Amino acid sequence: MSVRTGESVFDWIDTRAGARAKAGLARRVRPRPADSADLDLASNDYLGLARDKRVTGAAAAASLRWGAGSTGSRLVTGSTELHTELEYELANFCGAQSALVFSSGYAANLGALTALSGPGTAIVADQHIHASLIDGTRLSKADVVVAGHCDVPKVTHALATRGKRRALVVTDSVFSVDGDLAPLAELAAACREHEAALVVDDAHGLGVLGDGGRGAVHAAGLAKAPDVVATLTLSKSLGAQGGAVLGPSRVIRHLVDTARTFIFDTGLAPSSTAAALAALKVLREEPDRPARALDVARDLASRLREAGLRVSAPTAAVVSVQAPSAEAAFDWAEACRARGVVVGCFRPPSVPDGISRLRLTARADLTGADVERAVRVITETGASAGAVSRPRP
Amino acid sequence: MSVRTGESVFDWIDTRAGARAKAGLARRVRPRPADSADLDLASNDYLGLARDKRVTGAAAAASLRWGAGSTGSRLVTGSTELHTELEYELANFCGAQSALVFSSGYAANLGALTALSGPGTAIVADQHIHASLIDGTRLSKADVVVAGHCDVPKVTHALATRGKRRALVVTDSVFSVDGDLAPLAELAAACREHEAALVVDDAHGLGVLGDGGRGAVHAAGLAKAPDVVATLTLSKSLGAQGGAVLGPSRVIRHLVDTARTFIFDTGLAPSSTAAALAALKVLREEPDRPARALDVARDLASRLREAGLRVSAPTAAVVSVQAPSAEAAFDWAEACRARGVVVGCFRPPSVPDGISRLRLTARADLTGADVERAVRVITETGASAGAVSRPRP
Repeated sequence: MSVRTGESVFDWIDTRAGARAKAGLARRVRPRPADSADLDLASNDYLGLARDKRVTGAAAAASLRWGAGSTGSRLVTGSTELHTELEYELANFCGAQSALVFSSGYAANLGALTALSGPGTAIVADQHIHASLIDGTRLSKADVVVAGHCDVPKVTHALATRGKRRALVVTDSVFSVDGDLAPLAELAAACREHEAALVVDDAHGLGVLGDGGRGAVHAAGLAKAPDVVATLTLSKSLGAQGGAVLGPSRVIRHLVDTARTFIFDTGLAPSSTAAALAALKVLREEPDRPARALDVARDLASRLREAGLRVSAPTAAVVSVQAPSAEAAFDWAEACRARGVVVGCFRPPSVPDGISRLRLTARADLTGADVERAVRVITETGASAGAVSRPRP
Repeated sequence: MSVRTGESVFDWIDTRAGARAKAGLARRVRPRPADSADLDLASNDYLGLARDKRVTGAAAAASLRWGAGSTGSRLVTGSTELHTELEYELANFCGAQSALVFSSGYAANLGALTALSGPGTAIVADQHIHASLIDGTRLSKADVVVAGHCDVPKVTHALATRGKRRALVVTDSVFSVDGDLAPLAELAAACREHEAALVVDDAHGLGVLGDGGRGAVHAAGLAKAPDVVATLTLSKSLGAQGGAVLGPSRVIRHLVDTARTFIFDTGLAPSSTAAALAALKVLREEPDRPARALDVARDLASRLREAGLRVSAPTAAVVSVQAPSAEAAFDWAEACRARGVVVGCFRPPSVPDGISRLRLTARADLTGADVERAVRVITETGASAGAVSRPRP
């Protein structure tokens, strides 16, 4: 037997990395400093609350008072009174019966989908749902049907022809890449008609859509529906970290008993829990903040469109601008960054349709001058990237 | 068509809840206050660092300086210089080439297993691996073989007879329920012989085992092995929140490019990142802390065994005490709590062998008087719970 060193076990990784580099799909982590003069159009901090002193102050105070970590599973020592308070406030603010906090939106989605499905269930999923929901369907042991994108007739057909008694329809409210909206009311009606439950990931709706930022599920009048479950993140509009599931109390109790990502995960840190609570308080005190984020998004989109770029119609705080290729998207984003404007660059496999794009997020705290600057930089660099389809007027 | 209200969609949940209640398996969240005179033998805060002022102070300062949340995916705006520093320090402390921080240990395990496997891979897993590793194997699309518990010949046989070219052996280092150790050196040798990679979840080893708490992988001389990958949590010995993967640099770069729970999750909050960094610094300054946790565990175990209880042999900071039934375990844990001692109560499905037990964690900051008090309460309440197999000597 020859002497083995183990050196070759991961050689396949180098082959893959080479192929990705060739296709312009290599990624890298780019750590940012604490302070920067760059204009941030890439974060999901839609309301500008991650750096708000009321929110950061609450986080800091909670670390000192409650400890740096929650120290255990939510079912052992990882539930503090802060968690209960946040769950009460989240449910109350969004109009749901009950809420349960997870350590991330990813964990909330995995927990909700697996606990509410199983082999006796059909899952009918939108084609563009978030990766965490896709992973949830993969873990679910259910029959999974992908029913197009925002395609209510296809969903209805899948429900009507399913081979399982129980069914879940699964969708994002705001799709994260393009910022388009799911037809929640129609989906809920189809579910009602066919005795299915509707699970909506409202990660990009909370804090942006609905009365005072109560989210897309609230806006659709579904917050208290007995057959609708919403999932949220605390790391976008609320500027913190974590996730939550909202819905009928019996669903929430069921998750406590069975959701693996709740039971077998450490509870959310006290600082993040307190930060989300403080952000909810700001939302209550400043109910016009969400509308400002939407206004900025619309302004940004219409100006970029006028400049000849292919821009999504913003229905939330996300503005998506198509690029000619993955490489062009990357170069374009780099050129923006070199001029002090940080934008998201979404390439396969992070784009459901294979089209690479810049993803811009509109924050409520952006000024008119910020938007002006962003449009100028994105447009000028877009010309070199080959993204401007007609001359600037 | 009758009018539907959606009220019956989740009726199946009530049926399940009834069955669980009948079997004594209902769970509930029990929020704790910020301060308590109770003796904590249930958290995973093995070194007592979650409330250490150096750690909580660092967390608080980071919230104020860096913001309450990381604001995006690690690949967009969610990587701060703090994350890079923590990755450097984790790798350095544990002796690995590189490290990557995730928002939880659960996410780290899902990310590592899915990114390192796929349809062309065989996964050989220990029967008692953590739920997050099980979910990782379920998401992996690999051929999965469960090869007993700590059973090297079974693992070797599975590797030798696999139908796929690539293979991963997956194990916990310290199994969380009983605190027993995996035969890491033997597993690594089997992997080396059969050109497989070894993935070790060192969540309960870090901070407790190895030189100065460098973990079980370091203790087994595997930290720099080209074919070994370790996963960690930051929420146990380090008293914070989050998780990490450690291993060869090409593996870490591969995770940046492909691990879904890295790419599609919000980065760890600055406060938790800073807390873990501060905890690592304490570990460097106080290299004897880990040994103290082990001493407390051994002391606790031997005294409980002397008192006639069925106690695991502690090889880390976990002491497991068998209960006659799920109901008895629950009542026993409640009786301890009523007397001010908080213990973990593990019942199906959280126990791999179906045996319910109390799970006690030994913290480095427990005093002799604390151990004395714990033993007295657990033994006296254990008599009523029918857990003491012979009269106390």
